[in-house]
Amino acid sequence: MKTYLDCYPCLLRQALSAARRAGASSEQQRGIVLETMGQLKRMPEAATPPEIADGIHRLVRARTKNPDPYRQAKKDATHQALGLLPRLRELVRASADPRETAVRIAIAGNIIDYGASEGYELEATLERVLAQPLALDGLARLRAGLAEADAVLYLGDNAGETVFDRVLIENLSQSVTYVAKAGPIINDATREDALAAGLNEVAEIIDNGADAPGTLLARCFEAFRDRFSRATLIIAKGQANYESLSSAKAPICFLLQAKCPVIADDLGLEQGAVVAKASSALSRARDAQ
Amino acid sequence: MKTYLDCYPCLLRQALSAARRAGASSEQQRGIVLETMGQLKRMPEAATPPEIADGIHRLVRARTKNPDPYRQAKKDATHQALGLLPRLRELVRASADPRETAVRIAIAGNIIDYGASEGYELEATLERVLAQPLALDGLARLRAGLAEADAVLYLGDNAGETVFDRVLIENLSQSVTYVAKAGPIINDATREDALAAGLNEVAEIIDNGADAPGTLLARCFEAFRDRFSRATLIIAKGQANYESLSSAKAPICFLLQAKCPVIADDLGLEQGAVVAKASSALSRARDAQ
Repeated sequence: MKTYLDCYPCLLRQALSAARRAGASSEQQRGIVLETMGQLKRMPEAATPPEIADGIHRLVRARTKNPDPYRQAKKDATHQALGLLPRLRELVRASADPRETAVRIAIAGNIIDYGASEGYELEATLERVLAQPLALDGLARLRAGLAEADAVLYLGDNAGETVFDRVLIENLSQSVTYVAKAGPIINDATREDALAAGLNEVAEIIDNGADAPGTLLARCFEAFRDRFSRATLIIAKGQANYESLSSAKAPICFLLQAKCPVIADDLGLEQGAVVAKASSALSRARDAQ
Repeated sequence: MKTYLDCYPCLLRQALSAARRAGASSEQQRGIVLETMGQLKRMPEAATPPEIADGIHRLVRARTKNPDPYRQAKKDATHQALGLLPRLRELVRASADPRETAVRIAIAGNIIDYGASEGYELEATLERVLAQPLALDGLARLRAGLAEADAVLYLGDNAGETVFDRVLIENLSQSVTYVAKAGPIINDATREDALAAGLNEVAEIIDNGADAPGTLLARCFEAFRDRFSRATLIIAKGQANYESLSSAKAPICFLLQAKCPVIADDLGLEQGAVVAKASSALSRARDAQ
């Protein structure tokens, strides 16, 4: 997805928020805001939001000498989500359609995102996402894809959301590879965060070689790009994975909440929509049968 | 009030919004966003938000060659507010405390502000502002000031809000001078907008000589600065007047809604607070009695 002009103010807000979270002094905060505007001005028009965000958070980490400003927020989110795990499993167990409930739970967890906003209401979001109609028809295509695939490549998103992903993965019979980030970026899950959520009990955990938001293939290491290109079914969580992979020719089911108005517009949906969207490659594969 | 770092993303959003309202092409919008970031970088740290906003809207008007991007929005707001006028007057007439109700109505009208946000719910805001506790104790000081003053200098804010101001002015026995802007800036009321609201029936209308948001005294003409310095009671409407006059040594009662989190923080209040705040000079004048 391209970067819309509306993303610029939001990215500037994100820079300030990250600077504060990293413990920057007022003077440092001001310097970071001014430098971020310079960076935004220099960015090529074709850069995606995750590419720009990557540069901004790199700047914040460098200027504040804090390698992981969201470290405590990630731990807290994982802790909070683990407290919900028994209830999430019970929701799936008691559901008339456990697969759909598990997918919805994974989407509900996507609210845990310090890029899109400054906070969230986890339990209220869970209730809402369980009840709200799915905005796109990706669920049927995901079901069809799962009926054939032996393995799923699962592109994770945020720490804490990992626990909600675990509930979906427990519902899958396929062998699952869970992809974490190679280093801290916003509150995205690294291998350490994935382990803290117990994902190792239900999936192989790998990292993509990059410490950028979403999946910037050019920045990932080759071993990951190989797995990505050979995958027969990919589940990609969250806005940044959609922003970075919406044009990729791969069989992807995007699971996310359209938390910002720009993504909602790009998808032709209302803000807050609960989205399961099949990529064209996944749709074609299913339609061809 | 100083410009907080949080104002920068908001001012950038405002530039984009104004550009679109002015009918800018995508290319022009992009140019304006990039130029605005340059302008924000160059601004002295001590500049107030209205000073910065002034520069941004000047840039938008110049680049789009549209001298009044908010012209239609101002007409629509005045038309909508005039439709409410009989009901607003009836609220004052039926009130156990007509003065307080008239003040609250004037504050309710302050929601009509295209600087602070992209839209508003006029009638819902009216209900809320009539019911919500006043956040600061300016009302008692305003009452005391009115008990003595023969004349009130009334610094207006937005078109449409003018009609709500008219209801308060109808409730005052003093001679009132209503101050409009000398030229279009955001949706602030010019003399033309004040006339469209019928303010000439209840007040003398003057302009301050400036086409900047709020009241930037250095930009106003001298005749206005004289009246300002001689005034024994000033009512100043809206955020921008607070932002530009919060340090002025003048007997001012600020009436506004704290629509943005930055102003709310600066005042030590919650966002959405309904504010009647006496300046130190107005407080001292009353306390001395």
